[in-house]
Amino acid sequence: MDVWGIIKKGAVEIISAGDLQNKLISGQKLKIKLGTDPSAPDLHLGHTVVLRKLREFQELGHEIIFLIGDFTAAIGDPTGKSETRQPLNPAQIAQNAATYQEQVFKILDKTQTRVVYNSEWINKLTPADMLQLLASHTVARMLEREDFKKRYSENRPIALHEFMYPLLQGYDSVALRADVELGGTDQKFNLLMGRDLQAAAGQTPQNIVIMPLLEGLDGVNKMSKSLGNHVGITDPPNEMFGKLMSLPDALMPRYYELLTDLVFDPNAHPRAAKEKLARYITAQYHSQTAADAAAENFQNVFARSGVPNDTPVLKAGRFAGLRLKELLVAAGLSASNSDAKRDIQSGAVRINGQKADDPARVLISGKTGKFILQIGKRKFVKLE
Amino acid sequence: MDVWGIIKKGAVEIISAGDLQNKLISGQKLKIKLGTDPSAPDLHLGHTVVLRKLREFQELGHEIIFLIGDFTAAIGDPTGKSETRQPLNPAQIAQNAATYQEQVFKILDKTQTRVVYNSEWINKLTPADMLQLLASHTVARMLEREDFKKRYSENRPIALHEFMYPLLQGYDSVALRADVELGGTDQKFNLLMGRDLQAAAGQTPQNIVIMPLLEGLDGVNKMSKSLGNHVGITDPPNEMFGKLMSLPDALMPRYYELLTDLVFDPNAHPRAAKEKLARYITAQYHSQTAADAAAENFQNVFARSGVPNDTPVLKAGRFAGLRLKELLVAAGLSASNSDAKRDIQSGAVRINGQKADDPARVLISGKTGKFILQIGKRKFVKLE
Repeated sequence: MDVWGIIKKGAVEIISAGDLQNKLISGQKLKIKLGTDPSAPDLHLGHTVVLRKLREFQELGHEIIFLIGDFTAAIGDPTGKSETRQPLNPAQIAQNAATYQEQVFKILDKTQTRVVYNSEWINKLTPADMLQLLASHTVARMLEREDFKKRYSENRPIALHEFMYPLLQGYDSVALRADVELGGTDQKFNLLMGRDLQAAAGQTPQNIVIMPLLEGLDGVNKMSKSLGNHVGITDPPNEMFGKLMSLPDALMPRYYELLTDLVFDPNAHPRAAKEKLARYITAQYHSQTAADAAAENFQNVFARSGVPNDTPVLKAGRFAGLRLKELLVAAGLSASNSDAKRDIQSGAVRINGQKADDPARVLISGKTGKFILQIGKRKFVKLE
Repeated sequence: MDVWGIIKKGAVEIISAGDLQNKLISGQKLKIKLGTDPSAPDLHLGHTVVLRKLREFQELGHEIIFLIGDFTAAIGDPTGKSETRQPLNPAQIAQNAATYQEQVFKILDKTQTRVVYNSEWINKLTPADMLQLLASHTVARMLEREDFKKRYSENRPIALHEFMYPLLQGYDSVALRADVELGGTDQKFNLLMGRDLQAAAGQTPQNIVIMPLLEGLDGVNKMSKSLGNHVGITDPPNEMFGKLMSLPDALMPRYYELLTDLVFDPNAHPRAAKEKLARYITAQYHSQTAADAAAENFQNVFARSGVPNDTPVLKAGRFAGLRLKELLVAAGLSASNSDAKRDIQSGAVRINGQKADDPARVLISGKTGKFILQIGKRKFVKLE
């Protein structure tokens, strides 16, 4: 693939493509900026889409600037209304930044990455500078941003300092003299601020490479920890592999494009294609050996209906006297008695691999009770 | 009049009256704040309404804080869109502040007034402090301010820094720990910001004394230099007196209340009441002697149709050969030839006190021509 092919692969929008092509052709070493928020340092595969693009620029020899938005993290949300924006103290920020980088450098080459903290220049701004930044945009322009527009039209409060954050993010680009900034589609508004403010400061406006937001394992919503549809890049190999094997087939081409250097083969068997994907990604964040072991474990459990290696073990004595439907709830396999009953009636519940169909059966009394309890193909406990 | 009677005289609104009464009764020395903008230092009688109220607090022994908003003046309007908000350099600000004070101390007792500049504390604010200020209010709250609401609904731009100014004005009250702030009705929103921010900072919110905006000589619009309906406090005595004598009768009670310590007598003859008012105000900004002389000059001109002492003198030779209607225009008495003709036809034009009714008459040829030309009772020139 040529340079331009690499850069535009997977991107939703490039502003402006012609300018960026010219910059790339010029042979000059470009400053490529990615800004991050150190208040939630756990990365999932959704975050890696843009990090992989950054890596591509890095491999092309450009200067990668990994910006840690510590100024914002130290402020948090001064209204105290947002739980996700608690102000962090310097020790917490340092801790998060370290965690963050540990994960990021699974993708980026640490020795070739410049890590910067925006408090370095933002804390030097005078009140007059801040007013100057504010004066650069109008209220109407700010209310064009999707989330502001929505909240304003729904009469939900927007505190004034929220208008400052896009401006400060834009100012980061001025301070760094960024040539290119990367971000997700939800960042477009803020990325454009950088262009505006650079132009106002007499700089050439940065180009913007906008990457899509990756859908989570549910195949519908954007990947997010709070939705539970995510694959964390620190998830253990078996968990990572298993989660990826539950991906809807329709999402495979997208995951291939955005998360791997592999080419998706539409003629391959879906299960094989998915295993290849899961093995590739697991190997990337762990090792080839770990990925192979996870694949074998997975086959063990799901393909041969065996018992996974990491099945939790519970003390049988705790459950003495319970009827099957109560045991399923107490062992955490069913959410409620009625769920448990339904699971039993549907034939999904097995004891040591044998179907169990009597909800009232008492399995553990006194010392007896060493067996494997399972619902369907993914939920197991060992009772000993 | 008791203390409370003095303080509430003329005020449109006091927030909150009960609190302020208690503070006044407590006998404690209160900090009374008035903020001013040094970008337009020429005061007119409209400005004196609130200054006179400040003087009343001063006479009651409270601490008068005259705040010069030099921070704002130094910033101006960073969008460069407002002509009235050009940024001023320190020398201009110092010059304006001096001019301002020279005028203000015609009303306040200089020795008992604390003059402060808000750049002193605003320039010390960090970016985090600025964000904290912004976070204290919402976009919706700001858009409640009349002029913002209007502009937003009319799709006229509001630059974001404009939201900062009310907050900074409020912060001035925090920095000064003001007990009371004075302002005109157009300042109510900003004055309330002070209360909000003081409460947020754990201070007792200042009380607010809101004074009306004085109508100008046209009797309709608020007094303003740009509308030309103003009486400047540096206007020369004859001009000041003459302008005040042109006040519509209906406004007299209001001018008495807001600009004097006199009591308006509804049974007095309007002309006598107006002369008393004009004499009082002229004496305040000049001297009793100057006021008496101005009154005499006025009577000379208007009551006895005499010629005012300050009639402009023009060189007759410049107008040689002109016909009367052209002369009236050239001498600046009529706005156009057709106006001049109408003035002549209506019988308002006099030469040395005699009606002149021939528009085509040539008055000055060669060396001749020393006379007084007049239209109605207020426009005069001497030609010599």
